[in-house]
Amino acid sequence: MDLNVDMGESFGRYKLGNDEEVMKYITSANVACGFHAGDSLVMQETVMLAKKYGVAVGAHTGLEDKRGFGRRRMEITPEELKCDTLYQLGALDAFLKSNGMTMQHIKPHGILYRMVHDEERYARAYLEAVAQYNPGLYVMIPRNTVIWKLGLELGLNMAAEILIDLSYDDDGNWVLERTKKARSPEEVAERAIMVARDKKITTISGKVIDAAGDTICCHGDSPNAAEVVKKVKEAFEKAGIPLKQLGAA
Amino acid sequence: MDLNVDMGESFGRYKLGNDEEVMKYITSANVACGFHAGDSLVMQETVMLAKKYGVAVGAHTGLEDKRGFGRRRMEITPEELKCDTLYQLGALDAFLKSNGMTMQHIKPHGILYRMVHDEERYARAYLEAVAQYNPGLYVMIPRNTVIWKLGLELGLNMAAEILIDLSYDDDGNWVLERTKKARSPEEVAERAIMVARDKKITTISGKVIDAAGDTICCHGDSPNAAEVVKKVKEAFEKAGIPLKQLGAA
Amino acid sequence: MDLNVDMGESFGRYKLGNDEEVMKYITSANVACGFHAGDSLVMQETVMLAKKYGVAVGAHTGLEDKRGFGRRRMEITPEELKCDTLYQLGALDAFLKSNGMTMQHIKPHGILYRMVHDEERYARAYLEAVAQYNPGLYVMIPRNTVIWKLGLELGLNMAAEILIDLSYDDDGNWVLERTKKARSPEEVAERAIMVARDKKITTISGKVIDAAGDTICCHGDSPNAAEVVKKVKEAFEKAGIPLKQLGAA
Amino acid sequence: MDLNVDMGESFGRYKLGNDEEVMKYITSANVACGFHAGDSLVMQETVMLAKKYGVAVGAHTGLEDKRGFGRRRMEITPEELKCDTLYQLGALDAFLKSNGMTMQHIKPHGILYRMVHDEERYARAYLEAVAQYNPGLYVMIPRNTVIWKLGLELGLNMAAEILIDLSYDDDGNWVLERTKKARSPEEVAERAIMVARDKKITTISGKVIDAAGDTICCHGDSPNAAEVVKKVKEAFEKAGIPLKQLGAA
Repeated sequence: MDLNVDMGESFGRYKLGNDEEVMKYITSANVACGFHAGDSLVMQETVMLAKKYGVAVGAHTGLEDKRGFGRRRMEITPEELKCDTLYQLGALDAFLKSNGMTMQHIKPHGILYRMVHDEERYARAYLEAVAQYNPGLYVMIPRNTVIWKLGLELGLNMAAEILIDLSYDDDGNWVLERTKKARSPEEVAERAIMVARDKKITTISGKVIDAAGDTICCHGDSPNAAEVVKKVKEAFEKAGIPLKQLGAA
Repeated sequence: MDLNVDMGESFGRYKLGNDEEVMKYITSANVACGFHAGDSLVMQETVMLAKKYGVAVGAHTGLEDKRGFGRRRMEITPEELKCDTLYQLGALDAFLKSNGMTMQHIKPHGILYRMVHDEERYARAYLEAVAQYNPGLYVMIPRNTVIWKLGLELGLNMAAEILIDLSYDDDGNWVLERTKKARSPEEVAERAIMVARDKKITTISGKVIDAAGDTICCHGDSPNAAEVVKKVKEAFEKAGIPLKQLGAA
Repeated sequence: MDLNVDMGESFGRYKLGNDEEVMKYITSANVACGFHAGDSLVMQETVMLAKKYGVAVGAHTGLEDKRGFGRRRMEITPEELKCDTLYQLGALDAFLKSNGMTMQHIKPHGILYRMVHDEERYARAYLEAVAQYNPGLYVMIPRNTVIWKLGLELGLNMAAEILIDLSYDDDGNWVLERTKKARSPEEVAERAIMVARDKKITTISGKVIDAAGDTICCHGDSPNAAEVVKKVKEAFEKAGIPLKQLGAA
Repeated sequence: MDLNVDMGESFGRYKLGNDEEVMKYITSANVACGFHAGDSLVMQETVMLAKKYGVAVGAHTGLEDKRGFGRRRMEITPEELKCDTLYQLGALDAFLKSNGMTMQHIKPHGILYRMVHDEERYARAYLEAVAQYNPGLYVMIPRNTVIWKLGLELGLNMAAEILIDLSYDDDGNWVLERTKKARSPEEVAERAIMVARDKKITTISGKVIDAAGDTICCHGDSPNAAEVVKKVKEAFEKAGIPLKQLGAA
């Protein structure tokens, strides 16, 4: 099982997250590419941190809207999405290349996660960028979404993502609660182990449903993100389940 | 001799230059990378135009200031310059890669041309980005500048640039006249041939001085840019001097 | 009848429109406020031009998206719309105040025109900004839209706008044709006179319907905008109908 | 004596400072206007906080560079500075006007503080904006700078500012130490009282020099800013010296 967290979301004077501390416990870092968050200096620093801690790096691509942090839907054209995705992929790759690293994955950020998730025209544009740029990249996304199915059709490397610290409904869809449910690090770790070992998750109604995943995501912008990922990592060690990068043997 | 022009300077609804018409007559295109001009859609279109006309592509990197078009000096740190350069190189490369092309060169835009030209700290940061990202890139810059000498020391591919439509003083430095001297397409073509054939240029005082170059630049944002490059190309054909990309046999 | 045109849409090095020429023939200028177009220098120049030609000035407020020219819908919150509107109103007023002028009107730009047109939550937020900032402002908008009715309820000065160079359907709604119908300056002038004199307009199907308006809009970003407004002005003079600012006796 | 602190420096998702807590102890708030920091929503919230706590509001105007937080010198033209200043003044005034408040002062932020401080062309452009927009505004700036003298000549309301938590050299110039000297809240409070009561300050060399001021500034972006201003306010109360807004009787 892979454990991914959003990283590199600071911007100039504005600091967000505790990247170095979180980096110690995870296997994959989703690095912001300067559109919804991040800047070139932050990208360089984040890539260097990932290298230091042996963490695989992916492009966390988003809408070009720092003020809205990529969370405000914008009616861009599919061609704009494709080109913005290529642009961000290339930009991040420059820092990987200059640090002797390669890119592992791509993951859409914020509202873009939903847009490619649900809408065929956006899903297609996004995957075209991946296919044309580097068809070896893993695409992190929930199973059974529009983009998931399209990615499989196109023969791309889809990595099923479970949003371990969000809630799920009985149909297996994650739900963004208006007031995010506070979960203790222990509870998140327990949910993570259940996904990894049993391929199950407990829904918002208390039902237990199937939930097979390749990677689990913990949100990095919560105040206690470092504590959460530490607990998750410890739980995996205790359970004897290895945390490893995507595609690792 | 290579003939380069700035391309891809449009931005959203704002159109600048007559890129397709100019592309027909040149050998190298300096493509804006979204910092001082351009956006991802414009980059894609410009790279596709270059491919269509067999023109080599380079990154025209600039300061992050669209309002000032990269012409207002900003006191960025050398590390910011290095990272901004890496970012722009990677971003453009994504469009080349997805179109099956490779990058030929890099050239600093606007005030950044002067900053790396004159100041060691900026020259070094700029060249570090090139060396770490792709040491095979040609760096277009006038001979005998700070960055020229440093580039040779570092073993990089420096391509001597002559700004054929600007004026030169008797010491061989180009001068940015307050009111840009209007030159007819014929006059520019004549100056270009003199540089290519005789390795000489006529200065602002009327003196003829040495001016050996690998590439000549015509500015693409003048209203008659297409006419100028057409005349230059015709003059080269008439003189039996081949216009060819950098490094071409 | 008032004749309004969008103005001040240039941005830094990027020029759009032929503002000075158009200014000679109109009564009201909708000045971009730096969000979808324009910058502080352009605003100052545009306000000075309006003063020179005795043209009334209004705020052409838009979404904060220069790349998309305010034409890409963004899911901002009503509170963001209200605050962005206040911000733009104030910013433009500074140039009016420092030039001894006062603001006549406000008009939403691009996709925002539709958003406040159709959606109560945006209409309300927009009008709250107007009411709190300067309830004496005219709000230019088509009759019988959501915002029109709400504005009347709130006791604001609604100015009914006819988009003279666009097409109308038989229900009196303007339609944005995929390929904008090319109309000769003469045809636009004729339509303008018909609206002003007869309070009628010919629809896309050829039917003649009621169309009473306080102001007519010609789009300033067409290549022949200056010619169009010149013809319109001449037609009004010939017809003996005065073109005058909103609220003028 | 007036006590001013920078406020409203958050931007979208990025939070900076503890504005509400600080607001309780100060008399003047310098509110960022969306160029170097802040956005329209933050401006609205900050103005409402100032109203709640009876704090006077001024425009904290800066260079248009959020990434650099207005701290990177940009070679803008004086006309650009004048227009950018007008724009920011008007933008902030919209929030004051809609909240039934008036603007007390203006203060340049970051590197712009130094630019108008030292250079006549920038000082003049800045003051022209003030004079044209609202000549009643106080301009917060250190005594004996270029802009101070020019402001007096122009008959503007100059408010002498002492940067109480920075160091001063023996010539009475504030110095920006590479590593900002950490001062305890008590030490800052003591320095503040010394300025207010004795019109003296202790320099970096230990000398005591004259330092008469109308307003003292504490920096709001230090982690313990709220504690510092609380101590300062308590010290003034204890010393029986009133803290009051500029121009207050």
